Amino acid sequence: MTEHIFDPAQPDGRNATIDSAISADGRPEYGHRYVIEARTGRAVRCQAGDLVTVFNPSGHQVCDFWAFRDPNLPEYMSMAHSHTALESIMPKVGDKLVSNARTPLLEFLEDTSPGIHDTVIAACDLPRYRDLRVEGYHDNCTDNLRMALSAIGEKAPAIPAPFNLWMNIPVDGHGGTQWAAPVAKPNDRVVFRALVDLIVVMSACPQDITPINGVGVVPSELAFCVDRN
Amino acid sequence: MTEHIFDPAQPDGRNATIDSAISADGRPEYGHRYVIEARTGRAVRCQAGDLVTVFNPSGHQVCDFWAFRDPNLPEYMSMAHSHTALESIMPKVGDKLVSNARTPLLEFLEDTSPGIHDTVIAACDLPRYRDLRVEGYHDNCTDNLRMALSAIGEKAPAIPAPFNLWMNIPVDGHGGTQWAAPVAKPNDRVVFRALVDLIVVMSACPQDITPINGVGVVPSELAFCVDRN
Repeated sequence: MTEHIFDPAQPDGRNATIDSAISADGRPEYGHRYVIEARTGRAVRCQAGDLVTVFNPSGHQVCDFWAFRDPNLPEYMSMAHSHTALESIMPKVGDKLVSNARTPLLEFLEDTSPGIHDTVIAACDLPRYRDLRVEGYHDNCTDNLRMALSAIGEKAPAIPAPFNLWMNIPVDGHGGTQWAAPVAKPNDRVVFRALVDLIVVMSACPQDITPINGVGVVPSELAFCVDRN
Repeated sequence: MTEHIFDPAQPDGRNATIDSAISADGRPEYGHRYVIEARTGRAVRCQAGDLVTVFNPSGHQVCDFWAFRDPNLPEYMSMAHSHTALESIMPKVGDKLVSNARTPLLEFLEDTSPGIHDTVIAACDLPRYRDLRVEGYHDNCTDNLRMALSAIGEKAPAIPAPFNLWMNIPVDGHGGTQWAAPVAKPNDRVVFRALVDLIVVMSACPQDITPINGVGVVPSELAFCVDRN
Protein backbone atom coordinates (compact mmCIF):
# COMPACT_ATOMS: atom_id res chain seq x y z
CA MET A 1 0.00 0.00 0.00
CA THR A 2 1.32 3.47 -0.82
CA GLU A 3 0.65 5.76 2.08
CA HIS A 4 0.73 9.54 1.92
CA ILE A 5 3.28 10.79 4.46
CA PHE A 6 2.26 14.10 5.96
CA ASP A 7 5.07 16.63 5.52
CA PRO A 8 4.26 19.97 7.16
CA ALA A 9 6.63 21.86 4.84
CA GLN A 10 5.39 20.49 1.51
CA PRO A 11 2.65 22.47 -0.30
CA ASP A 12 -0.13 20.55 -2.05
CA GLY A 13 0.09 22.99 -4.98
CA ARG A 14 1.35 26.47 -5.71
CA ASN A 15 0.33 30.06 -6.31
CA ALA A 16 2.01 33.48 -6.52
CA THR A 17 3.09 33.25 -2.87
CA ILE A 18 6.20 31.33 -3.86
CA ASP A 19 7.39 34.30 -5.98
CA SER A 20 6.27 37.05 -3.59
CA ALA A 21 9.03 37.22 -0.98
CA ILE A 22 9.48 40.79 0.25
CA SER A 23 13.27 40.20 0.09
CA ALA A 24 15.55 37.20 -0.31
CA ASP A 25 15.80 36.62 3.44
CA GLY A 26 12.48 38.18 4.42
CA ARG A 27 13.98 41.25 6.06
CA PRO A 28 11.68 44.26 5.59
CA GLU A 29 12.31 47.82 4.56
CA TYR A 30 11.17 49.62 7.69
CA GLY A 31 8.12 51.80 7.14
CA HIS A 32 7.29 50.31 3.74
CA ARG A 33 3.70 49.23 3.21
CA TYR A 34 3.69 45.74 1.69
CA VAL A 35 0.57 44.44 -0.03
CA ILE A 36 -0.49 40.81 0.46
CA GLU A 37 -2.39 40.12 -2.73
CA ALA A 38 -5.75 38.38 -2.36
CA ARG A 39 -5.40 34.60 -1.83
CA THR A 40 -1.63 34.74 -1.13
CA GLY A 41 0.74 34.94 1.81
CA ARG A 42 3.99 36.65 2.80
CA ALA A 43 6.61 36.17 5.50
CA VAL A 44 8.62 38.87 7.24
CA ARG A 45 11.62 38.60 9.55
CA CYS A 46 11.20 40.89 12.57
CA GLN A 47 13.62 41.84 15.29
CA ALA A 48 12.73 42.06 18.95
CA GLY A 49 11.08 45.44 19.48
CA ASP A 50 9.79 45.86 15.93
CA LEU A 51 6.17 46.89 15.47
CA VAL A 52 4.09 44.91 12.96
CA THR A 53 0.93 46.54 11.64
CA VAL A 54 -1.58 44.52 9.61
CA PHE A 55 -4.10 46.49 7.55
CA ASN A 56 -7.52 45.28 6.36
CA PRO A 57 -8.29 47.54 3.36
CA SER A 58 -11.68 45.97 2.56
CA GLY A 59 -12.63 45.42 6.19
CA HIS A 60 -14.00 41.98 5.41
CA GLN A 61 -10.78 40.05 4.83
CA VAL A 62 -9.44 37.51 7.31
CA CYS A 63 -5.68 37.27 7.95
CA ASP A 64 -4.27 33.93 9.06
CA PHE A 65 -1.36 35.07 11.21
CA TRP A 66 1.55 32.97 12.52
CA ALA A 67 4.81 33.70 14.35
CA PHE A 68 7.89 31.48 14.57
CA ARG A 69 10.99 32.17 16.64
CA ASP A 70 13.96 33.10 14.52
CA PRO A 71 16.14 31.08 14.09
CA ASN A 72 14.42 28.33 16.17
CA LEU A 73 11.26 27.79 14.15
CA PRO A 74 10.04 24.70 16.08
CA GLU A 75 9.13 27.19 18.80
CA TYR A 76 6.09 29.02 17.45
CA MET A 77 3.07 31.00 18.58
CA SER A 78 0.50 28.61 20.02
CA MET A 79 -3.18 29.41 20.38
CA ALA A 80 -3.68 26.59 22.92
CA HIS A 81 -0.85 27.87 25.14
CA SER A 82 -2.08 31.46 24.69
CA HIS A 83 -5.56 30.41 25.86
CA THR A 84 -3.97 29.22 29.11
CA ALA A 85 -1.91 32.40 29.52
CA LEU A 86 -4.79 34.75 28.71
CA GLU A 87 -7.63 32.74 30.31
CA SER A 88 -9.51 33.59 27.13
CA ILE A 89 -9.97 32.43 23.55
CA MET A 90 -10.27 36.08 22.40
CA PRO A 91 -6.95 37.97 22.63
CA LYS A 92 -7.31 41.71 23.11
CA VAL A 93 -5.14 44.81 23.29
CA GLY A 94 -2.63 44.49 26.12
CA ASP A 95 -2.37 40.69 25.85
CA LYS A 96 0.80 38.78 25.09
CA LEU A 97 0.61 35.84 22.72
CA VAL A 98 2.91 33.01 23.80
CA SER A 99 4.75 30.14 22.17
CA ASN A 100 4.48 26.38 22.59
CA ALA A 101 7.23 26.86 25.22
CA ARG A 102 5.22 29.66 26.96
CA THR A 103 7.62 32.38 25.77
CA PRO A 104 5.82 35.71 25.20
CA LEU A 105 6.33 36.37 21.47
CA LEU A 106 4.03 39.25 20.57
CA GLU A 107 2.30 42.00 22.49
CA PHE A 108 -1.08 43.04 21.08
CA LEU A 109 -0.69 46.85 21.08
CA GLU A 110 -3.54 48.32 19.07
CA ASP A 111 -6.78 47.27 17.38
CA THR A 112 -9.01 49.75 15.58
CA SER A 113 -11.60 47.03 14.83
CA PRO A 114 -14.29 45.82 17.27
CA GLY A 115 -11.80 43.18 18.48
CA ILE A 116 -13.44 40.05 17.07
CA HIS A 117 -10.77 37.52 16.07
CA ASP A 118 -10.54 33.73 16.07
CA THR A 119 -8.16 31.35 17.82
CA VAL A 120 -9.93 27.99 17.56
CA ILE A 121 -10.19 27.24 13.83
CA ALA A 122 -7.39 25.64 11.78
CA ALA A 123 -5.97 27.28 8.66
CA CYS A 124 -7.75 26.17 5.50
CA ASP A 125 -5.89 23.63 3.40
CA LEU A 126 -6.51 21.56 0.29
CA PRO A 127 -8.25 18.76 2.24
CA ARG A 128 -10.64 21.39 3.67
CA TYR A 129 -11.62 22.43 0.14
CA ARG A 130 -12.02 18.75 -0.80
CA ASP A 131 -14.44 18.48 2.13
CA LEU A 132 -16.22 21.54 0.66
CA ARG A 133 -16.43 19.64 -2.67
CA VAL A 134 -13.89 21.72 -4.57
CA GLU A 135 -12.17 19.80 -7.38
CA GLY A 136 -8.65 20.62 -8.53
CA TYR A 137 -6.35 23.01 -6.68
CA HIS A 138 -7.72 25.76 -4.45
CA ASP A 139 -5.49 28.41 -2.89
CA ASN A 140 -5.31 27.84 0.85
CA CYS A 141 -3.70 29.39 3.90
CA THR A 142 -1.72 26.28 4.83
CA ASP A 143 0.04 26.21 1.46
CA ASN A 144 0.49 29.99 1.65
CA LEU A 145 2.30 29.49 4.97
CA ARG A 146 4.48 26.77 3.49
CA MET A 147 5.31 28.82 0.37
CA ALA A 148 5.82 32.11 2.21
CA LEU A 149 8.43 30.46 4.43
CA SER A 150 10.01 28.63 1.51
CA ALA A 151 10.23 31.92 -0.41
CA ILE A 152 12.55 33.34 2.28
CA GLY A 153 14.59 30.15 2.60
CA GLU A 154 12.81 28.55 5.56
CA LYS A 155 10.68 25.45 6.13
CA ALA A 156 7.45 25.12 8.07
CA PRO A 157 8.25 22.83 11.04
CA ALA A 158 4.51 22.27 11.66
CA ILE A 159 1.20 23.88 10.75
CA PRO A 160 0.34 25.69 13.98
CA ALA A 161 -3.20 26.81 14.67
CA PRO A 162 -3.17 30.42 13.44
CA PHE A 163 -4.34 33.62 15.09
CA ASN A 164 -7.12 34.40 12.61
CA LEU A 165 -7.32 38.18 12.59
CA TRP A 166 -10.84 39.54 12.02
CA MET A 167 -12.26 36.03 11.64
CA ASN A 168 -15.67 35.93 13.30
CA ILE A 169 -16.46 32.52 14.79
CA PRO A 170 -19.14 32.96 17.44
CA VAL A 171 -18.99 30.18 20.06
CA ASP A 172 -22.31 29.44 21.77
CA GLY A 173 -22.90 28.16 25.30
CA HIS A 174 -22.77 24.54 24.15
CA GLY A 175 -19.48 24.99 22.26
CA GLY A 176 -21.11 25.26 18.83
CA THR A 177 -19.38 27.50 16.29
CA GLN A 178 -20.66 29.50 13.32
CA TRP A 179 -18.99 30.82 10.16
CA ALA A 180 -19.82 34.53 10.33
CA ALA A 181 -18.65 37.58 8.36
CA PRO A 182 -16.02 39.92 9.83
CA VAL A 183 -17.30 42.95 11.72
CA ALA A 184 -14.25 45.10 10.92
CA LYS A 185 -14.37 48.39 8.97
CA PRO A 186 -12.36 49.22 5.85
CA ASN A 187 -8.77 50.11 6.75
CA ASP A 188 -8.99 48.69 10.25
CA ARG A 189 -5.59 47.68 11.57
CA VAL A 190 -3.96 45.73 14.35
CA VAL A 191 -0.49 46.39 15.74
CA PHE A 192 1.81 43.95 17.52
CA ARG A 193 5.20 44.38 19.12
CA ALA A 194 7.69 41.56 18.54
CA LEU A 195 9.10 40.62 21.95
CA VAL A 196 11.82 38.35 20.50
CA ASP A 197 13.24 37.84 17.01
CA LEU A 198 10.46 36.33 14.92
CA ILE A 199 9.37 35.30 11.47
CA VAL A 200 5.77 36.47 11.03
CA VAL A 201 3.67 34.90 8.28
CA MET A 202 0.38 36.33 7.07
CA SER A 203 -2.08 34.81 4.60
CA ALA A 204 -4.97 36.66 2.97
CA CYS A 205 -7.39 33.76 3.40
CA PRO A 206 -8.72 32.53 0.02
CA GLN A 207 -11.90 31.07 1.51
CA ASP A 208 -14.63 31.83 -1.06
CA ILE A 209 -17.28 29.28 -0.06
CA THR A 210 -18.14 30.06 3.57
CA PRO A 211 -18.83 33.76 4.42
CA ILE A 212 -15.81 34.21 6.70
CA ASN A 213 -14.36 36.78 4.26
CA GLY A 214 -17.68 38.64 4.07
CA VAL A 215 -21.11 37.84 2.73
CA GLY A 216 -19.91 38.59 -0.80
CA VAL A 217 -17.47 35.66 -0.45
CA VAL A 218 -14.81 37.58 -2.43
CA PRO A 219 -11.34 37.34 -0.88
CA SER A 220 -9.43 40.62 -0.97
CA GLU A 221 -5.94 41.93 -0.26
CA LEU A 222 -4.30 42.79 3.01
CA ALA A 223 -1.24 44.93 3.75
CA PHE A 224 1.41 45.14 6.43
CA CYS A 225 4.21 47.39 7.60
CA VAL A 226 7.12 46.86 10.00
CA ASP A 227 8.46 49.79 11.98
CA ARG A 228 11.36 50.09 14.35
CA ASN A 229 10.18 50.95 17.80
CA MET B 1 24.26 34.19 24.04
CA THR B 2 23.23 30.59 24.64
CA GLU B 3 19.73 30.07 23.35
CA HIS B 4 17.46 27.23 24.39
CA ILE B 5 16.39 25.36 21.27
CA PHE B 6 12.87 23.99 21.61
CA ASP B 7 12.85 20.24 20.90
CA PRO B 8 9.34 18.77 21.02
CA ALA B 9 10.68 15.29 21.86
CA GLN B 10 12.94 16.22 24.77
CA PRO B 11 11.45 16.06 28.29
CA ASP B 12 12.37 18.78 30.79
CA GLY B 13 12.69 16.12 33.50
CA ARG B 14 11.52 12.60 34.21
CA ASN B 15 9.10 10.48 36.21
CA ALA B 16 7.84 6.88 36.24
CA THR B 17 6.32 7.30 32.76
CA ILE B 18 9.64 6.46 31.16
CA ASP B 19 9.59 3.00 32.82
CA SER B 20 5.86 2.32 32.40
CA ALA B 21 5.52 1.11 28.81
CA ILE B 22 2.72 -1.44 28.53
CA SER B 23 5.03 -3.47 26.22
CA ALA B 24 8.27 -2.85 24.39
CA ASP B 25 6.52 -1.62 21.23
CA GLY B 26 3.32 -0.37 22.88
CA ARG B 27 1.11 -3.13 21.54
CA PRO B 28 -1.64 -3.97 24.05
CA GLU B 29 -3.00 -7.23 25.39
CA TYR B 30 -6.57 -6.98 24.17
CA GLY B 31 -9.10 -6.75 26.96
CA HIS B 32 -6.52 -6.01 29.66
CA ARG B 33 -7.23 -3.08 31.93
CA TYR B 34 -4.09 -0.95 32.19
CA VAL B 35 -3.73 1.55 35.03
CA ILE B 36 -2.23 4.97 34.36
CA GLU B 37 -0.78 5.88 37.72
CA ALA B 38 -1.52 9.36 39.00
CA ARG B 39 0.75 12.02 37.42
CA THR B 40 2.06 9.69 34.67
CA GLY B 41 1.32 8.81 31.07
CA ARG B 42 1.20 5.74 28.83
CA ALA B 43 1.13 5.10 25.08
CA VAL B 44 -0.65 2.30 23.26
CA ARG B 45 -0.43 1.19 19.65
CA CYS B 46 -3.91 0.58 18.19
CA GLN B 47 -4.98 -0.95 14.92
CA ALA B 48 -7.76 0.41 12.75
CA GLY B 49 -11.03 -0.86 14.20
CA ASP B 50 -9.78 -1.24 17.78
CA LEU B 51 -11.90 0.19 20.57
CA VAL B 52 -10.14 2.30 23.19
CA THR B 53 -11.91 2.81 26.52
CA VAL B 54 -10.60 5.34 29.04
CA PHE B 55 -11.85 5.00 32.63
CA ASN B 56 -12.02 7.75 35.26
CA PRO B 57 -12.03 5.82 38.58
CA SER B 58 -12.19 8.93 40.79
CA GLY B 59 -14.47 10.88 38.47
CA HIS B 60 -12.46 14.05 39.01
CA GLN B 61 -9.31 13.23 37.03
CA VAL B 62 -8.54 14.86 33.67
CA CYS B 63 -6.95 12.79 30.89
CA ASP B 64 -4.82 14.60 28.33
CA PHE B 65 -5.43 12.45 25.25
CA TRP B 66 -3.47 12.45 21.96
CA ALA B 67 -3.46 10.32 18.81
CA PHE B 68 -0.69 10.03 16.22
CA ARG B 69 -0.87 8.09 12.98
CA ASP B 70 1.23 4.96 13.04
CA PRO B 71 3.84 4.94 11.55
CA ASN B 72 3.50 8.55 10.28
CA LEU B 73 3.54 10.44 13.58
CA PRO B 74 3.77 13.95 12.04
CA GLU B 75 0.11 13.45 11.17
CA TYR B 76 -1.72 13.71 14.49
CA MET B 77 -5.11 14.48 15.96
CA SER B 78 -5.69 18.23 15.80
CA MET B 79 -8.18 20.08 17.93
CA ALA B 80 -8.15 23.11 15.57
CA HIS B 81 -8.94 20.94 12.53
CA SER B 82 -11.54 19.02 14.53
CA HIS B 83 -13.25 22.30 15.46
CA THR B 84 -13.68 22.99 11.75
CA ALA B 85 -14.97 19.48 11.01
CA LEU B 86 -17.38 19.42 13.97
CA GLU B 87 -18.40 23.10 13.94
CA SER B 88 -17.96 22.86 17.70
CA ILE B 89 -15.29 23.06 20.38
CA MET B 90 -17.08 20.31 22.37
CA PRO B 91 -16.83 16.88 20.70
CA LYS B 92 -19.67 14.52 21.52
CA VAL B 93 -20.72 10.93 20.87
CA GLY B 94 -21.00 10.31 17.14
CA ASP B 95 -18.30 12.82 16.22
CA LYS B 96 -15.09 11.98 14.40
CA LEU B 97 -11.87 13.62 15.54
CA VAL B 98 -9.61 14.49 12.62
CA SER B 99 -5.90 14.97 12.01
CA ASN B 100 -3.89 17.97 10.87
CA ALA B 101 -4.46 16.56 7.35
CA ARG B 102 -8.25 16.25 7.96
CA THR B 103 -8.13 12.45 8.15
CA PRO B 104 -10.77 11.04 10.52
CA LEU B 105 -8.71 9.25 13.19
CA LEU B 106 -11.12 8.41 16.01
CA GLU B 107 -14.87 8.04 16.30
CA PHE B 108 -16.31 9.06 19.67
CA LEU B 109 -18.55 6.07 20.41
CA GLU B 110 -19.66 6.30 24.02
CA ASP B 111 -19.53 8.70 26.97
CA THR B 112 -21.11 7.84 30.32
CA SER B 113 -20.16 11.27 31.74
CA PRO B 114 -22.15 14.49 31.18
CA GLY B 115 -20.01 15.16 28.09
CA ILE B 116 -17.96 18.09 29.35
CA HIS B 117 -14.44 17.95 27.84
CA ASP B 118 -11.90 20.56 26.73
CA THR B 119 -10.29 21.20 23.36
CA VAL B 120 -8.85 24.71 23.75
CA ILE B 121 -6.25 24.45 26.52
CA ALA B 122 -2.65 23.29 25.99
CA ALA B 123 -1.15 20.39 27.92
CA CYS B 124 0.61 21.52 31.08
CA ASP B 125 4.37 21.64 30.91
CA LEU B 126 7.26 22.72 33.10
CA PRO B 127 7.05 26.37 31.93
CA ARG B 128 3.36 26.36 32.98
CA TYR B 129 4.34 25.33 36.50
CA ARG B 130 7.06 27.99 36.50
CA ASP B 131 4.30 30.50 35.65
CA LEU B 132 2.38 29.05 38.62
CA ARG B 133 5.49 29.69 40.78
CA VAL B 134 6.52 26.07 41.25
CA GLU B 135 10.25 25.65 41.85
CA GLY B 136 12.13 22.50 40.81
CA TYR B 137 10.61 19.78 38.67
CA HIS B 138 6.85 19.23 38.50
CA ASP B 139 5.29 16.29 36.68
CA ASN B 140 3.50 17.54 33.59
CA CYS B 141 1.44 16.18 30.71
CA THR B 142 3.83 17.41 28.02
CA ASP B 143 6.75 15.48 29.50
CA ASN B 144 4.44 12.50 30.06
CA LEU B 145 3.63 12.56 26.33
CA ARG B 146 7.31 12.75 25.45
CA MET B 147 8.28 9.93 27.83
CA ALA B 148 5.33 7.69 27.00
CA LEU B 149 6.30 7.80 23.31
CA SER B 150 9.98 7.36 24.11
CA ALA B 151 9.14 4.33 26.29
CA ILE B 152 7.75 2.52 23.22
CA GLY B 153 10.58 3.61 20.92
CA GLU B 154 8.94 6.68 19.35
CA LYS B 155 9.57 10.44 19.38
CA ALA B 156 7.04 13.23 19.77
CA PRO B 157 7.12 15.15 16.44
CA ALA B 158 5.31 18.10 18.08
CA ILE B 159 3.22 18.81 21.16
CA PRO B 160 -0.29 18.88 19.70
CA ALA B 161 -3.12 20.51 21.59
CA PRO B 162 -4.67 17.56 23.44
CA PHE B 163 -8.26 16.41 23.73
CA ASN B 164 -8.61 16.99 27.48
CA LEU B 165 -11.12 14.36 28.58
CA TRP B 166 -13.35 15.50 31.48
CA MET B 167 -11.54 18.85 31.72
CA ASN B 168 -14.12 21.53 32.46
CA ILE B 169 -13.22 24.88 30.93
CA PRO B 170 -16.38 26.97 30.65
CA VAL B 171 -16.10 29.57 27.86
CA ASP B 172 -18.26 32.66 28.34
CA GLY B 173 -19.84 34.89 25.70
CA HIS B 174 -16.77 37.11 25.55
CA GLY B 175 -14.34 34.21 25.13
CA GLY B 176 -13.22 34.17 28.77
CA THR B 177 -12.31 30.79 30.24
CA GLN B 178 -12.42 29.39 33.77
CA TRP B 179 -10.58 26.54 35.51
CA ALA B 180 -13.44 24.43 36.84
CA ALA B 181 -13.65 20.97 38.41
CA PRO B 182 -14.77 17.97 36.34
CA VAL B 183 -18.46 17.07 36.45
CA ALA B 184 -17.88 13.36 35.79
CA LYS B 185 -18.86 10.56 38.21
CA PRO B 186 -16.56 7.86 39.58
CA ASN B 187 -15.94 5.16 36.97
CA ASP B 188 -17.23 7.22 34.07
CA ARG B 189 -15.72 6.11 30.78
CA VAL B 190 -15.37 7.23 27.18
CA VAL B 191 -14.96 4.88 24.23
CA PHE B 192 -13.35 5.65 20.86
CA ARG B 193 -12.96 3.57 17.74
CA ALA B 194 -9.60 3.89 15.96
CA LEU B 195 -10.38 4.54 12.28
CA VAL B 196 -6.75 4.08 11.17
CA ASP B 197 -3.64 2.63 12.82
CA LEU B 198 -2.76 4.96 15.68
CA ILE B 199 -0.57 5.52 18.69
CA VAL B 200 -2.78 6.85 21.47
CA VAL B 201 -1.14 8.61 24.41
CA MET B 202 -2.91 9.38 27.67
CA SER B 203 -1.64 11.42 30.61
CA ALA B 204 -3.24 11.50 34.06
CA CYS B 205 -2.82 15.25 34.43
CA PRO B 206 -0.65 16.12 37.47
CA GLN B 207 -2.14 19.59 37.87
CA ASP B 208 -2.39 20.13 41.65
CA ILE B 209 -2.66 23.92 41.82
CA THR B 210 -5.74 24.84 39.79
CA PRO B 211 -8.94 22.83 40.51
CA ILE B 212 -9.13 21.16 37.10
CA ASN B 213 -8.62 17.74 38.74
CA GLY B 214 -11.28 18.49 41.35
CA VAL B 215 -11.62 20.90 44.22
CA GLY B 216 -9.40 18.68 46.38
CA VAL B 217 -6.56 19.32 43.88
CA VAL B 218 -5.32 15.73 44.30
CA PRO B 219 -4.43 14.08 40.97
CA SER B 220 -5.55 10.46 40.76
CA GLU B 221 -5.13 7.45 38.48
CA LEU B 222 -6.86 6.64 35.21
CA ALA B 223 -7.18 3.32 33.38
CA PHE B 224 -7.67 2.18 29.80
CA CYS B 225 -8.44 -0.92 27.83
CA VAL B 226 -8.15 -1.80 24.14
CA ASP B 227 -10.55 -4.27 22.58
CA ARG B 228 -10.75 -5.73 19.12
CA ASN B 229 -13.95 -4.71 17.45
